[in-house]
Amino acid sequence: MQIAILSIFHYFMRMFKKREKVFEIEEGKFLSPKFNEEGLIPVITTDCKTNEVLMHGFMNEEALKKTIENKEAYYWSRSRKSLWHKGKTSGFIQKVIDLRVDDDQDSLWMTVDIGSGASCHVGYKSCFYRSIPLGKIEDSEKIEMNFKEKKKKFDPEKVYKDQPNPTKI
Amino acid sequence: MQIAILSIFHYFMRMFKKREKVFEIEEGKFLSPKFNEEGLIPVITTDCKTNEVLMHGFMNEEALKKTIENKEAYYWSRSRKSLWHKGKTSGFIQKVIDLRVDDDQDSLWMTVDIGSGASCHVGYKSCFYRSIPLGKIEDSEKIEMNFKEKKKKFDPEKVYKDQPNPTKI
Repeated sequence: MQIAILSIFHYFMRMFKKREKVFEIEEGKFLSPKFNEEGLIPVITTDCKTNEVLMHGFMNEEALKKTIENKEAYYWSRSRKSLWHKGKTSGFIQKVIDLRVDDDQDSLWMTVDIGSGASCHVGYKSCFYRSIPLGKIEDSEKIEMNFKEKKKKFDPEKVYKDQPNPTKI
Repeated sequence: MQIAILSIFHYFMRMFKKREKVFEIEEGKFLSPKFNEEGLIPVITTDCKTNEVLMHGFMNEEALKKTIENKEAYYWSRSRKSLWHKGKTSGFIQKVIDLRVDDDQDSLWMTVDIGSGASCHVGYKSCFYRSIPLGKIEDSEKIEMNFKEKKKKFDPEKVYKDQPNPTKI
């Protein structure tokens, strides 16, 4: 068991360059991702056709490796605490077109093709279907948003059936 | 002091709807953002003209309130541990065009106008200037990326002078 863990560790050590110098991280050509204290890196996912932001997720090392190798999006599901091949249940697979890393290599931007599908478990195309009004906030009032997507792309009750909702209070 | 803290707490309590029911969070019209255990919410920032992702940052409650009210981007700088009015040093202010929240209200997507400016402290327009090649990863090799921006928009040494670099190993 200990040997198995060590060999997985050494595998990722080979795959990613060790973070040693700020200049190399920012200006170098080698991938040296920084995973947070939970072992995760945030991922921004955008649609290759419309450029809209579809979702914000997280990957662990295994999800990042599978995404690179299979050219399909894998995430780490924080609510289910497991590797998550996006679209496995809903059929809405995300084909990866481009994958980028930011200056300090602690976040990823992934451009995907979802065809005419959807990305959001509530049924909308993008998870970002509500817009926050800008300007002075009245002291006594809650902030009332505007729906930018009017119609769902699918019925989540039919697609996910009795699976638990990932949204946490 | 205690009264001051309590009144700030009550201010934000009024501004945001309390998170009580999954249905209200996902399908409701009121803003009920979820800040993580550090009091932060991730923010995806995109360019209103090109739709490219410029950066991935974080806001605390104060940064979110200032962003909504002033229509300019404020973040929480994790490296400096302080409120960060983007562009205050570099001049590259981000004018907020649209601000959205996702289904479970734990991340934000902000569309900004930066004119002909830049967003990345390394000098590039977008922080995501490097693309990761997709496909089989060779066992013994590091992953070599491609630069998608060839030329910097500004010289960070001239703009930031002796300010410390925010990138951490």
